[in-house]
Amino acid sequence: MSERIWTAGLVVIGDEILSGRTHDKNIAQVASWLQVQGIRLAEVRVVPDVTARIVAAVNALRSENDYLFTTGGIGPTHDDITVDAVAEALGVEVVVHPEARALLTRYYADKPGGLTEGRLRMARVPQGAELIPNRMSGAPGIRLGNIHLMAGVPHITAGMLDALTGTLEGGAVLLTETIGCWTAESEVADVLREVEQAHSACQIGSYPFFREGRVGANFVVRSTGADQLASCVDSLCDGLATAGYDFTPGGI
Amino acid sequence: MSERIWTAGLVVIGDEILSGRTHDKNIAQVASWLQVQGIRLAEVRVVPDVTARIVAAVNALRSENDYLFTTGGIGPTHDDITVDAVAEALGVEVVVHPEARALLTRYYADKPGGLTEGRLRMARVPQGAELIPNRMSGAPGIRLGNIHLMAGVPHITAGMLDALTGTLEGGAVLLTETIGCWTAESEVADVLREVEQAHSACQIGSYPFFREGRVGANFVVRSTGADQLASCVDSLCDGLATAGYDFTPGGI
Repeated sequence: MSERIWTAGLVVIGDEILSGRTHDKNIAQVASWLQVQGIRLAEVRVVPDVTARIVAAVNALRSENDYLFTTGGIGPTHDDITVDAVAEALGVEVVVHPEARALLTRYYADKPGGLTEGRLRMARVPQGAELIPNRMSGAPGIRLGNIHLMAGVPHITAGMLDALTGTLEGGAVLLTETIGCWTAESEVADVLREVEQAHSACQIGSYPFFREGRVGANFVVRSTGADQLASCVDSLCDGLATAGYDFTPGGI
Repeated sequence: MSERIWTAGLVVIGDEILSGRTHDKNIAQVASWLQVQGIRLAEVRVVPDVTARIVAAVNALRSENDYLFTTGGIGPTHDDITVDAVAEALGVEVVVHPEARALLTRYYADKPGGLTEGRLRMARVPQGAELIPNRMSGAPGIRLGNIHLMAGVPHITAGMLDALTGTLEGGAVLLTETIGCWTAESEVADVLREVEQAHSACQIGSYPFFREGRVGANFVVRSTGADQLASCVDSLCDGLATAGYDFTPGGI
């Protein structure tokens, strides 16, 4: 059975991530959210606040994937250049979106300074775009075909993902099951490899850890088929038991 | 004055990051470490455990940057394919490094299972490579010219970075100073833009937050020149004061 796999690329935009000042939280939340939509995150690129670098990453990942997401650079300040860069990548103009302008006008009506020129920047979109609702602050996200421009601030991005839930077509959800073992992964490497080879519809990832003075590992079995997953997990448990290792279904 | 800027690319290898299962910690620690070495992290790519994807990312980022780092995929299990992928990218053979083999033989001498075939995988390197010491566990990192292959487990990566400290040539360290403001960044966007335009040797990043029910932002001024940085910070403080805003040197 060959089923269509839907994929997404993510471009994380921001000097603050590349300088180490800010620890990115968007990769993990976008990845987890995509899993539930039946879409696989195929690649992430983190690029600086430089137009040419954003354009290159956007064009590479949008051509290779069904969907493209960006985080960062859609705010009101001079270093927020994502809208311009994406418009350049797509070869379209930047326009003020009337609905976004109306949203911002209402949002800033009772705030100090009102709707300044800087704030009005947040109503600019690549021509043809629609808005992604943002209940957290005035500025919306932006959707243009299969491209989604989201905020850099993680809780605002979370709200935008929430607004997009169920609106994107995906494929079968990747199912996972985890088996934990208080043993070095290197001891059971042969078992893992053999079991994976015998179950072509499944992948097994091995994630070692060192806790409370002991080494261990979690083995994550992934498949889009529930039966294949169950069969692979059974084989892995049998293999570990036969080799004399205790294991913990569900992971450690 | 035009000074040479040294750059690095980072390839983060691992299905577990792209699935959202594991929150990456290596981007931030590699970025922070590079800053101190006078090297700028120019781009990060997160790719899955798929040889062709690793090869493509490695080749793209090594040709564009002075240095390349990878994290992940150098362990003992079947999903650890970084060494093979990097060797393929460079067009060299994979060989067993005698010193790595000796290290692993000693390390596993008194451990259950001894030096298994899986564990011996961790002695494999692209031909011509030298080792990066790892005091945390048996398996070393790998250095081949300007390419550095490091572990995926963050505290092991930290040890490898520590071992590399001072061994890479870099340029002037990027200096930063932060000014905090309990005001919406959108209110002072004009001030930020004008000050940045007047100080071509500096960049200003604006990082908004929402804490204790109030909005605020930190403005991070960056430059490799101490005098230019001080002058830009002074202008920014003057601009904020003139516009009637309180600010906190050092950030909030």
